[in-house]
Amino acid sequence: MSHKTQEPIIKKVSELPTDQAKWVTLQKVDYVDQVGKERTWEVATRKTRGKAGVDAVAMGNILLHPSRPPSTLIVIQYRPPLDSYTVEWPAGLIDADETAEEAAVREFKEETGYDCRVLSVSPVQAADPGMTNANMQLAMVEVQLKEGDEEPEQRLEDGEHIQRVVVPLTEFYDRLVEYSKQERMIVAAKLFHFAAGMHFAQTQKYF
Amino acid sequence: MSHKTQEPIIKKVSELPTDQAKWVTLQKVDYVDQVGKERTWEVATRKTRGKAGVDAVAMGNILLHPSRPPSTLIVIQYRPPLDSYTVEWPAGLIDADETAEEAAVREFKEETGYDCRVLSVSPVQAADPGMTNANMQLAMVEVQLKEGDEEPEQRLEDGEHIQRVVVPLTEFYDRLVEYSKQERMIVAAKLFHFAAGMHFAQTQKYF
Repeated sequence: MSHKTQEPIIKKVSELPTDQAKWVTLQKVDYVDQVGKERTWEVATRKTRGKAGVDAVAMGNILLHPSRPPSTLIVIQYRPPLDSYTVEWPAGLIDADETAEEAAVREFKEETGYDCRVLSVSPVQAADPGMTNANMQLAMVEVQLKEGDEEPEQRLEDGEHIQRVVVPLTEFYDRLVEYSKQERMIVAAKLFHFAAGMHFAQTQKYF
Repeated sequence: MSHKTQEPIIKKVSELPTDQAKWVTLQKVDYVDQVGKERTWEVATRKTRGKAGVDAVAMGNILLHPSRPPSTLIVIQYRPPLDSYTVEWPAGLIDADETAEEAAVREFKEETGYDCRVLSVSPVQAADPGMTNANMQLAMVEVQLKEGDEEPEQRLEDGEHIQRVVVPLTEFYDRLVEYSKQERMIVAAKLFHFAAGMHFAQTQKYF
């Protein structure tokens, strides 16, 4: 955090009537289940989904540098829903007229300042399927740095305060565990699961 | 799916007023940001969180058998929020008087029928931090099977229809990609990210 910033403070949490919400809403789904019984389910949804039908893209990224170890860039930002700083991969909502790949390049530039090359885009994944219809795709991207490159400027929107941290891939999992121990910090589940999968593959004794 | 079941059908989706919701709700958070500016954020929250302060636990599981390859058990169930069948690791909400470890053992038994041993419990993770305050922990668990063991009975609650599929760990990532291509199926992001992390560690050329 720069020296100009202060700790965010929540002043008030109030019930938000559905008809006053701009970004998210609640829906009641009436459905008939597998055995023919009528049931209902309560769902939280975003109101911003574009024609692509996918809410968001996250950028699993690899930074390559001539003299530094292969690394990944994670972002730390205050998230009011949790009143905490979250550790995440850069991510953003896909605009109505964008593909996931286009959104990945644009959002990565905005949040990190870096130009990236998209290596792959995952199938659509369900963010939290018991509670919401939110979905996302994981784009794996690569950034090739040169010796002496300076850290680029971010192009943040008004109100965005995003700290960038570069972590060597070999320290990825351990660093997330360390972040989780810090006061008012929480690692995003998708990021943690990716790193936990890497750690599992590297330490498991099963195959 | 057994022969007695039918495809679930959504009959109606309606706006759910916040004051009529039982399981989820909407909140407006008024906060002061890092540069002293007053802002608001819209949040979806569960109404069921217990005293542990954590909503849910997922069970990353390994099935060990004398003559079969080390495998993991995934569950497939219809999820009304997405009108799709989701592929997930077994998971469930933590009851008010439970630890994450206790909930892991109980929920794993209910959804899969198997007794498991908890190997580790992760730090608390944020499920979808831009939209909700939902959080969870990942318990890694192990099940030791014997030659000739039959698939145990599930202990499902009324309305739960959960299909179990055993996948060799070496085929884990590829099988999730295959599931993603099927009509009306979506893989949960946490599961996909874990498998993608394993796949990345096993195929990457960086270190």
